[in-house]
Amino acid sequence: MNVTAMKVDNGVNVEALLGARTALTEAPEAARFKWRATCDWIRGTHSRTTVQGFYGLGAEQSRGKSFRYDADHPELFASEDNGATPVEFVLVALASCLTAGIASVAQNRNIQLRSVKATLEAGMDMQGILGIDNEVRNGFDGIKVTFHIDADATREEIAALVAQSQRRSAVFDIVTNPTNVAVEVAR
Amino acid sequence: MNVTAMKVDNGVNVEALLGARTALTEAPEAARFKWRATCDWIRGTHSRTTVQGFYGLGAEQSRGKSFRYDADHPELFASEDNGATPVEFVLVALASCLTAGIASVAQNRNIQLRSVKATLEAGMDMQGILGIDNEVRNGFDGIKVTFHIDADATREEIAALVAQSQRRSAVFDIVTNPTNVAVEVAR
Repeated sequence: MNVTAMKVDNGVNVEALLGARTALTEAPEAARFKWRATCDWIRGTHSRTTVQGFYGLGAEQSRGKSFRYDADHPELFASEDNGATPVEFVLVALASCLTAGIASVAQNRNIQLRSVKATLEAGMDMQGILGIDNEVRNGFDGIKVTFHIDADATREEIAALVAQSQRRSAVFDIVTNPTNVAVEVAR
Repeated sequence: MNVTAMKVDNGVNVEALLGARTALTEAPEAARFKWRATCDWIRGTHSRTTVQGFYGLGAEQSRGKSFRYDADHPELFASEDNGATPVEFVLVALASCLTAGIASVAQNRNIQLRSVKATLEAGMDMQGILGIDNEVRNGFDGIKVTFHIDADATREEIAALVAQSQRRSAVFDIVTNPTNVAVEVAR
């Protein structure tokens, strides 16, 4: 067995990402992306959101396929539980963003991952959205993310991986910092 | 045809929601919920997040089923596009939260909805997450949501529905205001 020939492979094409970084440094306009979704109300609190194309590298990007996500409220709220509730989709977004980041940073640092599991828990006082107490916010009062990581690395290296993923995570930024949302009704 | 017997029906059980509001006003501890998700890394930027139980009304709530969401990055980033990209899940969350709110508020205001469609677009400058420019944030630079609503209501009533949904939306709050996220690595 030729040990020196064994290469770290987390399935991330770091060369392509570093190439993209170089290319976009020289063409910053190409780095301006637009992500999109369309949502159709089905009935009650049940909706279906479709994710398909996006804009980037100066052009429309069609995936040639679409992803559909049913969302609903749980039966506890007299709904039909046809999908995760909207706030749970925020946890899906955060978990998947941090996890993809860990794999990418690990690849770049030549660390072989064996398994990565994240458990997320977010507190929410329903007195907010139910309009019981205006002092209570509608959203989460905080999110706790716990990673269990098995990798060819020291505890310190693993902690540094997670910290770097956090620093570069789009969803971590969106959740921890304010983002402007403009809502309008079409004529 | 007995017109007076026709009732507005958007599929939302407003009586149950108002009952919950009354019950939780008297028992604020029961209003403290915990939403959860677990995420398993698959390979590369591909992960699978599972949403199952949550805590609320003072007890663990099992759905008796789970929802699974694959997330990945698009092929443009040398990934395999096995699911929506994490930031697109933020749009799913926001769209579905505002849409469920519109249906609930419409039911409470006795307004029959015929169709509700939301289109969302979020700008993002990839110079942030790629580490090209530290002045550029990692997340969205803003989100625009446009609703197309067909309902038995005036334009003003429809605009007021959307505004009230926004005021009571958990995800709108999470995106527009900061939420603390604590990330740790388990021993």
